[in-house]
Amino acid sequence: MTIVSVLGSGVMATALTFPLADNGHEVRLVGTHLDRDIIDSLRATGVHPGLERKIPETVRIHQIEEIEAALEGAEIVMSGVNSFGVRWAGEQLAQLLEPGTLIISIAKGMEADPSGDLRILPDVLAERVPPSLRQDVSWSAVAGPSIAGEVAARRETCVVFAGRDEEALNRLADTFRTDWYHVWTSTDFVGVEVCAATKNCYALGVGFAEGILERLNEAESSDSNHDYEAALFGQAAFEMGQMVRLMDGRPDTPYGLAGVGDMYVTSMGGRNVRVGRLVGSGLRFSEARSKMAGVTLEGAVAIEVIGGALLKLTERGIIEPTDFPLMRHLHAIIAEDQPPKIPWGAFFGGEA
Amino acid sequence: MTIVSVLGSGVMATALTFPLADNGHEVRLVGTHLDRDIIDSLRATGVHPGLERKIPETVRIHQIEEIEAALEGAEIVMSGVNSFGVRWAGEQLAQLLEPGTLIISIAKGMEADPSGDLRILPDVLAERVPPSLRQDVSWSAVAGPSIAGEVAARRETCVVFAGRDEEALNRLADTFRTDWYHVWTSTDFVGVEVCAATKNCYALGVGFAEGILERLNEAESSDSNHDYEAALFGQAAFEMGQMVRLMDGRPDTPYGLAGVGDMYVTSMGGRNVRVGRLVGSGLRFSEARSKMAGVTLEGAVAIEVIGGALLKLTERGIIEPTDFPLMRHLHAIIAEDQPPKIPWGAFFGGEA
Repeated sequence: MTIVSVLGSGVMATALTFPLADNGHEVRLVGTHLDRDIIDSLRATGVHPGLERKIPETVRIHQIEEIEAALEGAEIVMSGVNSFGVRWAGEQLAQLLEPGTLIISIAKGMEADPSGDLRILPDVLAERVPPSLRQDVSWSAVAGPSIAGEVAARRETCVVFAGRDEEALNRLADTFRTDWYHVWTSTDFVGVEVCAATKNCYALGVGFAEGILERLNEAESSDSNHDYEAALFGQAAFEMGQMVRLMDGRPDTPYGLAGVGDMYVTSMGGRNVRVGRLVGSGLRFSEARSKMAGVTLEGAVAIEVIGGALLKLTERGIIEPTDFPLMRHLHAIIAEDQPPKIPWGAFFGGEA
Repeated sequence: MTIVSVLGSGVMATALTFPLADNGHEVRLVGTHLDRDIIDSLRATGVHPGLERKIPETVRIHQIEEIEAALEGAEIVMSGVNSFGVRWAGEQLAQLLEPGTLIISIAKGMEADPSGDLRILPDVLAERVPPSLRQDVSWSAVAGPSIAGEVAARRETCVVFAGRDEEALNRLADTFRTDWYHVWTSTDFVGVEVCAATKNCYALGVGFAEGILERLNEAESSDSNHDYEAALFGQAAFEMGQMVRLMDGRPDTPYGLAGVGDMYVTSMGGRNVRVGRLVGSGLRFSEARSKMAGVTLEGAVAIEVIGGALLKLTERGIIEPTDFPLMRHLHAIIAEDQPPKIPWGAFFGGEA
């Protein structure tokens, strides 16, 4: 039995308590200051309002004020916040982590410095922790195709735990793995995290396809626009490969669970696809975002960060202006409010 | 203006007359002996019964008896039959082809010899033609994500023309390419065709996911099983890469339009997914096939051929028994009527 503390009680963090509880671990779920209502609901009824499902009875529930006790003695700490909460989570961990702890993070995204150099989020998380302590704990992350609602329904799910410390990854995998929650490990931390961040961006683009059909409002015999989606998906896989190589990740990482697998599941729906659909239907991104007020759009933020960084990397001559045509176009749509006009001819190294 | 003769008037062959007609070419569509009703309908109303859409008025319509006149002077001949018609089409071409003709084929599949060595279908087509003539024409194929109904609706579509003769590919691409039908070329003929054949197999597996939900008939809050689909998709991409390398194709071919792009679109629906869904819902494959009597199941046939070949390649020590666990399991389901029991732990080189 392992003590696992989970910081953040959003749908994904909470869903991950299911395999942990199934394995008999002591799981302590700590809501952030934004999760107060979730924790109240869990305490009152056991039901997570986002998952619309009772969580395992053995999971212990904590409000943020109890964070100190909830992390005490934890062998594993999950940073269960999304990309917007990573710095905050790092600050909490800085005060409470004990040497030897295994940290595992679920946020997807990247950060860029002013010159356009990109960093993966687990490194951003770790930077909040003083260097001496930072080296005495291990940093890993969950990636791969998993929808929170499906994990909580105990559907067959295959994920990748990535990090730089193989032994830590194996211990984490052993702790989480069940006969329905399947875990692989990868020491290509950068490659896996680049995939995790970029698939949200590209899934937003896939959403255009359905929106365009709505805009056309054609009395068509066929009501699908899958050729369009598939071409974007193919180009996305191509660009993911380029970006992983650019950041010195392993070239084959995009072509399994962490890359195309996760991009498949993200393209099937969710908020990134939804906002893309609104843009495809004719709204500018600023209008689509207003329609989805209150919904965090990690894909759009990642497009701003990554697309903006690509512009700077181009100025510095590190990449060519013809590289990443899809990500650049997504950036023009999100950051400059342009309508979608897919540069098909620029895909796959150029059509003609 | 180019004279293009199309042998076979199924939905995909007929859909490809749309970009050709848009480009002002002389297009001659010749039905096979199985297409008599289609040709009758096209002559009477201009509507293709499968596409449920009028075809371009400039396309000339021919019954099989007119094949000789229809192919006379053709600079490009499309073999528009599916994998079951390839030998027949080759025999027709053997009698009527003129030197210098560019042949382009749309059938997806592979053939295996008794020792398990696999061949791509365009080579099977070419073998029906006497060697002297065979060398005086060029052989190419269409691959990549395209649904016939979407092509006929002139939706944005991105495809790959593959072959060994780069000049022929460029001429073909120039002939077909429009502002909505985008064409890339690849001289990795084997790699592209391996992707085209195997994606049908793997899409059948993706279909299990929805069937399993039907079988469970759970009062679940979530009604999707996308994690399952995505994990199969990821493993499929992994195995596609292995198979392309096994057959000396280019390692990066699976990771663009021809591979993951086409597999995405094929996984969105169609007969392969439909039969997979029936199997997922609890039927044995033999029962599912009876339910779909009269429907050609190219994916299932490809699984029999490729999965059977893998067994022989294993006996010969060319591949390991642990290679291709998903294709082997699909083979057990199709050829041995076993129920699906996905070997998750064997995926991606092994879970633990």
